[in-house]
Amino acid sequence: MRFDGDQFMLLDQTLLPHEEKWVNITDSARLINCIERLAIRGAPAIGIASALLLALLAERGLGPNQLAGEAQLLRRSRPTAINLMYCIDRIVAATKSSNYPAAVITEAERIFDEDIALCKSMAQLGAELINKNEKILTHCNTGALATAGSGTAMAVIDCAHRQGKNIFVWVDETRPLLQGGRLTAWECLQLGIPHSIICDNAAASLMAKGEIDRIFVGSDRIAANGDFANKIGTYSLAVLAHHHKIPFYVVAPYTTIDPFCPSGTHIPVEIRNEDEVRGARGGFGSCTWSPSESPAYNPAFDITPAHLVSGWIIDTGVFTPDDLTQEEWWKKG
Amino acid sequence: MRFDGDQFMLLDQTLLPHEEKWVNITDSARLINCIERLAIRGAPAIGIASALLLALLAERGLGPNQLAGEAQLLRRSRPTAINLMYCIDRIVAATKSSNYPAAVITEAERIFDEDIALCKSMAQLGAELINKNEKILTHCNTGALATAGSGTAMAVIDCAHRQGKNIFVWVDETRPLLQGGRLTAWECLQLGIPHSIICDNAAASLMAKGEIDRIFVGSDRIAANGDFANKIGTYSLAVLAHHHKIPFYVVAPYTTIDPFCPSGTHIPVEIRNEDEVRGARGGFGSCTWSPSESPAYNPAFDITPAHLVSGWIIDTGVFTPDDLTQEEWWKKG
Repeated sequence: MRFDGDQFMLLDQTLLPHEEKWVNITDSARLINCIERLAIRGAPAIGIASALLLALLAERGLGPNQLAGEAQLLRRSRPTAINLMYCIDRIVAATKSSNYPAAVITEAERIFDEDIALCKSMAQLGAELINKNEKILTHCNTGALATAGSGTAMAVIDCAHRQGKNIFVWVDETRPLLQGGRLTAWECLQLGIPHSIICDNAAASLMAKGEIDRIFVGSDRIAANGDFANKIGTYSLAVLAHHHKIPFYVVAPYTTIDPFCPSGTHIPVEIRNEDEVRGARGGFGSCTWSPSESPAYNPAFDITPAHLVSGWIIDTGVFTPDDLTQEEWWKKG
Repeated sequence: MRFDGDQFMLLDQTLLPHEEKWVNITDSARLINCIERLAIRGAPAIGIASALLLALLAERGLGPNQLAGEAQLLRRSRPTAINLMYCIDRIVAATKSSNYPAAVITEAERIFDEDIALCKSMAQLGAELINKNEKILTHCNTGALATAGSGTAMAVIDCAHRQGKNIFVWVDETRPLLQGGRLTAWECLQLGIPHSIICDNAAASLMAKGEIDRIFVGSDRIAANGDFANKIGTYSLAVLAHHHKIPFYVVAPYTTIDPFCPSGTHIPVEIRNEDEVRGARGGFGSCTWSPSESPAYNPAFDITPAHLVSGWIIDTGVFTPDDLTQEEWWKKG
């Protein structure tokens, strides 16, 4: 993500790792299109991008009411991710300042800078949990591509790697959109982290063999009771980790926590196009292997209940199931 | 599979469901190539195909010693599948008959016909377990393409469907080679069975929602203690089914049982090419989405321990964990 006050550019993630193409974001329609086709993805990243776009539009002369209308459109683009709603709320609040549009621009820049600090904080807290020579599994993509900073789960992993802990990463390919096989593998190469890609369905047998010491995943929304939504396949990993007694952590900034959402059952889950399951397409090309007459079911996220989580690594601290009994536990770090 | 005594033809499964192309099998090298690239697959099918090829070679004048040499080459093509070894053993035994080569041809035809009867038997036994309106999940492909008869797990499902039980099938796509998304979906269409394809990592969330009543899978080898090998992802499903208290069955003919294999840890697991994980390729085209510099780990099978299995549906009967204490339990049906 690049923002210089006049221009807002996004790296098109559908083309990675084959091509690095930047898209110039000039209006909501273009950003919504990028979010819907996952050219930009990651709950923190889409929230920050929405804030930056609204700031750009404010600077270009849109009035507070027009901006509120644009904000409303942006909210609908990824219903599961609470960070998006949270960032937009902050921008909409700033439109009420007498100092409009400057207040909006300042707020968007604050959101951007804050995310970098949140990532750093999570990375350090999480890396402390990792011992030397551990084999870590992660799902989907949670690195620098998914945030403004260094990422969530991936930032933890990278921090442990930089600390010289000699870690190894199993990268779940993450069907159907292959954010692991495409983006996390690419980020591991960039960061010099030893890794291996696996099909999602191979994780269990690695657990049985003692080849996975710890699991870190990101989140699109954490409910007040600790349940959380994340990329489809996360709940599967949580159950498997529980069975194999492998520590399972969710890593997210406080902006991912939805205090008004009492539990996971209240988190809306986006159902995406069936064609994503019938094949694969992106900057790498396009393949359809299933019969077009066969229906497919494609939930983008699943919900992991709190009782399967070993720890919540928030920028404010590492929380365990015991902490959940406290109200607003995420503020008690 | 088509065999008329003079010619042996196989349907190339890598091209399904887009194209139906038959390959003329004239020698071991060609059949081994078909097995290795999964043009023919399914533990019963590759055993039967090997028997038929050896019969064809015997008829064309190969002596018993030459035939034993060819048999040795065929054994190595899929180390996990015990049916292959079993069928070859029967053919090699027949080469010792004074009535060579007729005895070999008769034995191969017997193996072929027997498989049809075994499938029918499993189908009827398994279908009795299914109640009206159930939603069933299956993994990989276990239908007519995987056997000479109607299949193993898929034959059970089809039998319940024909009985008018109004069943619905969740088809695991089965990465990396997509036997579910390609072949099982295609078979469901042919058989008129209502179904929907899912990514493998979505099964757990369907279980949590009560959308899966029962799971049926096939097997490449069952150890004497009831542990079994099957397509990668099967163990994952077994653990998830156990957690969600969903009945989990393995369906296989007695030829899949290896009485000399005491437990799952003794079953060799084939590790396949990394490129299969980095992308997808077949009759549908070719895509590579992962960086070529990223390593990938690609075990073709995993091992499910007996304690996670609700029942073994063998042609001789349905066996429960209680039956396993008896020696050669699979003969006690």
